[in-house]
Amino acid sequence: INFSVCHSQIMDDSAPLSSCSVFAWLVGASQVLGVTSVVLTGFNLHPLCMVLGLVFLQGDAILVYRVFRNEPKRNVKVLHGIIHLLALIIGIIGIVAVFDFHREAKIPDMYSLHSWCGMATLILFCIQWVMGLLFFLFPVASSWLRASYLPVHVFCGLVLLVMAIGSSLLGMTEKLLFSIMQPYSLFTPEGVLANVLGILLVCFGIVLGYLITREEYRRPPNPEEESLSVHFKTLTEGASPTGP
Amino acid sequence: INFSVCHSQIMDDSAPLSSCSVFAWLVGASQVLGVTSVVLTGFNLHPLCMVLGLVFLQGDAILVYRVFRNEPKRNVKVLHGIIHLLALIIGIIGIVAVFDFHREAKIPDMYSLHSWCGMATLILFCIQWVMGLLFFLFPVASSWLRASYLPVHVFCGLVLLVMAIGSSLLGMTEKLLFSIMQPYSLFTPEGVLANVLGILLVCFGIVLGYLITREEYRRPPNPEEESLSVHFKTLTEGASPTGP
Repeated sequence: INFSVCHSQIMDDSAPLSSCSVFAWLVGASQVLGVTSVVLTGFNLHPLCMVLGLVFLQGDAILVYRVFRNEPKRNVKVLHGIIHLLALIIGIIGIVAVFDFHREAKIPDMYSLHSWCGMATLILFCIQWVMGLLFFLFPVASSWLRASYLPVHVFCGLVLLVMAIGSSLLGMTEKLLFSIMQPYSLFTPEGVLANVLGILLVCFGIVLGYLITREEYRRPPNPEEESLSVHFKTLTEGASPTGP
Repeated sequence: INFSVCHSQIMDDSAPLSSCSVFAWLVGASQVLGVTSVVLTGFNLHPLCMVLGLVFLQGDAILVYRVFRNEPKRNVKVLHGIIHLLALIIGIIGIVAVFDFHREAKIPDMYSLHSWCGMATLILFCIQWVMGLLFFLFPVASSWLRASYLPVHVFCGLVLLVMAIGSSLLGMTEKLLFSIMQPYSLFTPEGVLANVLGILLVCFGIVLGYLITREEYRRPPNPEEESLSVHFKTLTEGASPTGP
């Protein structure tokens, strides 16, 4: 797989000349924001795993469809699925870590808004991953069903990314008020750093959201690829699902 | 203005028959979720104003483009602007209320992640409203500039709605840990009710996001309306911006 951010630019003269470099800058910015966020949450296993898995890797798994939009679709699909599997495993490690911590410290589980939102995100993420596998990697669904499910899958993916970022911010607020409630109000460095991390996560979400939803960065439709693809059902049933 | 949820259904036989009723149900669900959230936050002026203004009214101001998608565009624009102005005024009342409360209780301002996110949301909301007014209600920008800004305006609107919901959840978490940190972990009714409110706000955001981004609920392009509209610049400059 070649890194092909600017590939479409070369092939399509109708696109504005600045579109390619803006795209490259935004992808670069998203990676800087994501890596910085992961490094800043490295103080503890639970937040590290959740931000690495459900924010950074989930975001990048979605981004592969934009960065590699001129590569064969099946390869990108497989990469998308693998990164999401990695995100899911790291997310589960992060959840197990916090339940272990609660058991040892005799802290009740699942009573806070953070835990409700976080658990909902992880459960829906599992469902989304299994549905994606069944619908798009193994051709068990009809092409009509796949085409109908695709926009729902894309929408739910973005919702899950936003929910993961929101849950992270809720968790940080909880942690800050448990640990440093008094000094937090005096602008202690730890509190300010945590707030900055929160803002970085929000910025990561905004840049990712922009890259994903912007029409010009979408995978160009390729009917030839669709009809030649391994999803032979499209040949017999007529309707051809387009790439997310 | 007629309530025209099902208008396009009658005129366009190619749309699936269920599309209209699904749309009506989702709009109804969003209103039930929004009103319930507003009622549940009625315990205090600051959260009431923020949820009513920046979540419920902001959401509904965006939704008018979908609900009244067959009405004259200028009327819908004015309605969109008026509801947003109302949202902005209520939001400013809510911010003033919390600063007043802090001053009386001698609590420091603007140190928490909730305050940073909330203030960023309100400031960006003001900028977005002024930009929208200049670009789309008063034709000071060229039609090319308006058409270029439109997708950015639409994207930023959705980001602001999500930020408002996220900030609300952060504020609720803060309030719960300040007021009932010990009983919260024992599943006290107040804590559970607040968590349910948080989940309702998330559901409101998801339903709104789906209604706004779904392609089939968009305003149908109407070149005749565009060329006949008051934006006479489109006649001389050629490019015609399409509705959000």
